[in-house]
Amino acid sequence: MKIGILGGGQLGYMFLQNALQYPVEIHVLDPAENAPCAPHAHHFVQGDFADYETVVNFGKDLDAIGIEIEHVNVEALQTLKSMGKRVVPDPDALAIIQDKSVQKKFYVDHEIPTAPYFELEDWKDLICSVTEFPVFQKANKGGYDGKGVQYLPSRNGLTNQLRVPSIYETPADLEKEIAVVVVADGNGNLVNYPVVELVFNQEYNLLDYLLMPSTLEDSLAQKAEKIARNVVEKLNSPGVFAVEMFLNKDQSIWVNETACRVHNSGHSTIEAAYSSQFDQMLRTLMNLPLGSSNLYATSAMVNLIGAEGQTGEAQIENIEELMQIPGVYLHWYAKSETRPGRKMGHITLVDEDVDRLKKNIAKVNQTVQVTAKK
Amino acid sequence: MKIGILGGGQLGYMFLQNALQYPVEIHVLDPAENAPCAPHAHHFVQGDFADYETVVNFGKDLDAIGIEIEHVNVEALQTLKSMGKRVVPDPDALAIIQDKSVQKKFYVDHEIPTAPYFELEDWKDLICSVTEFPVFQKANKGGYDGKGVQYLPSRNGLTNQLRVPSIYETPADLEKEIAVVVVADGNGNLVNYPVVELVFNQEYNLLDYLLMPSTLEDSLAQKAEKIARNVVEKLNSPGVFAVEMFLNKDQSIWVNETACRVHNSGHSTIEAAYSSQFDQMLRTLMNLPLGSSNLYATSAMVNLIGAEGQTGEAQIENIEELMQIPGVYLHWYAKSETRPGRKMGHITLVDEDVDRLKKNIAKVNQTVQVTAKK
Repeated sequence: MKIGILGGGQLGYMFLQNALQYPVEIHVLDPAENAPCAPHAHHFVQGDFADYETVVNFGKDLDAIGIEIEHVNVEALQTLKSMGKRVVPDPDALAIIQDKSVQKKFYVDHEIPTAPYFELEDWKDLICSVTEFPVFQKANKGGYDGKGVQYLPSRNGLTNQLRVPSIYETPADLEKEIAVVVVADGNGNLVNYPVVELVFNQEYNLLDYLLMPSTLEDSLAQKAEKIARNVVEKLNSPGVFAVEMFLNKDQSIWVNETACRVHNSGHSTIEAAYSSQFDQMLRTLMNLPLGSSNLYATSAMVNLIGAEGQTGEAQIENIEELMQIPGVYLHWYAKSETRPGRKMGHITLVDEDVDRLKKNIAKVNQTVQVTAKK
Repeated sequence: MKIGILGGGQLGYMFLQNALQYPVEIHVLDPAENAPCAPHAHHFVQGDFADYETVVNFGKDLDAIGIEIEHVNVEALQTLKSMGKRVVPDPDALAIIQDKSVQKKFYVDHEIPTAPYFELEDWKDLICSVTEFPVFQKANKGGYDGKGVQYLPSRNGLTNQLRVPSIYETPADLEKEIAVVVVADGNGNLVNYPVVELVFNQEYNLLDYLLMPSTLEDSLAQKAEKIARNVVEKLNSPGVFAVEMFLNKDQSIWVNETACRVHNSGHSTIEAAYSSQFDQMLRTLMNLPLGSSNLYATSAMVNLIGAEGQTGEAQIENIEELMQIPGVYLHWYAKSETRPGRKMGHITLVDEDVDRLKKNIAKVNQTVQVTAKK
């Protein structure tokens, strides 16, 4: 079976590592000739996944086409679907996700709880709008990894506004950020992993680690899972989905946004779950039964981010000390160059003892960093 | 870091899948241009790993060299070691393992329990030897996957003898076949996985599955682990070792033979252990601390063997039914052609409930087979 993936970055790379266990041939399309997947896929094609002709040509001799990034040409996927290819996620679902304005309307139409918002075709109209501040501006298109989002604290000083059609959201009264990864086979079956909780460093207000399962009490966790499953049910598409949510201080939950692909929130499923999100991605592409989302143990995931002031050939420092930590797993993304803030890898910790796990997270954060070779 | 592996078959393939998580560059040498590793390693070199010049040329610009097969040129590895490369296992240990006669003498010299034996330089002398029959003949060199071993039931009919220098062993009074995978970092630290038990189908006397941990009572399991660790300690080399043993009906344990590489016996560590044998292999090559051999759950491993009467382009039948079984993992070895008896893949089952595990093994065996495409 021939499977094509649009995008050959770290998500495609982790997908490929698992897919090599199966009787499949993996083709990858990415604009970067040195994309992480390039040396390892059965076939690598350098090209623009946002271009209609490129994507149709890439997919026309394959059996199934998936994505590891959402900014791909939807019309081409529609064409491939009409040619009888299995396309995951469904192009209609992808079209909803790709445009924040459409995605937001989808939540409202399906009575899925989400932050109050309004939208402006012309960003210049904000100055004369009747909204209260602060608001979060989210560009309708092209947002990724925190890009395309702007915090606007007050009516004074709107110079930071993104100058594109956007939605404007009321900020959550945030207690926690959480996420649920849900997998759908497209035949009506869903499985979900337990709630993941984003734990922030109180001092620096930076993401410290992701914890799965979360510390939420059962009834709240169940509520979050139910909301996430409802989102995916309504999207009516096979695939892996990550539903990111805000837990407000009044214990209400708002859907922030949904990814229709494998996601940072699900990385620790590689080691901690019977079937990982990458394994599920393959299963949905092969139209196989969904895997088990049961966990072996509690896990935490720490992103490995390129250090400030460091640009150049990437290296990880103190790998010996790191690999001494019990239950530690390194995932290096094989990107040749590090830049400040770039995701260069991640570390998963698995432990049945949650206190020990937390101590070891602190150790991980004190130990490794990604720098440029001198 | 540049790591070279001699051999690009299924063991190299599974090694590579894990190694892609680390900041390393993997080079593979194999005589077959369509070896499983060929399309996926950073660099693939087609060549003969038994040839001195080929191996030295392959390794001379790398940092570390490992093996996935034992029939490689030891002198070349000695040369590479003398050039300052990290070679795993140590060429001296490999030389002991490569020759059954030397290996057997090694056990005797170190008082490691093993089957009584004698050796003959000239196989024709067997007819006039004073031995009792039956005996197992094992060719000193080149044995692999059951090849190079011949059962000789009686003095009459020695026509099946292998016509090469061999050792001749008294058969065990067998209760069980067991194995222990031991990992050494070369700095005096060892870890071992729990005892693996080979479970045979009583009706057909064929290997049914491997179970880890075994059903041995604790004291016997500890005795087996102690013997295995002693073998590896005395070999005095970094690397992954599989010590295969016979448990006799009188509860004595004999070492059958030792592999100085990752091994069939350790495959279920991929899913069932914190650090798999393939991860340990990489750690020993990178000179990193050894990983944890703790288990997440009980596991069983079933080999996927090419069906009788089937030769040609390989396919796995009933994969949908297979993937429905809870806790199942497929490892397809990406060999293009199936042949009767050829190892084409394996299936691991992981379950905390051993009874359910055994039921699911039966299901696996009833479900899948590897055949040739029509």
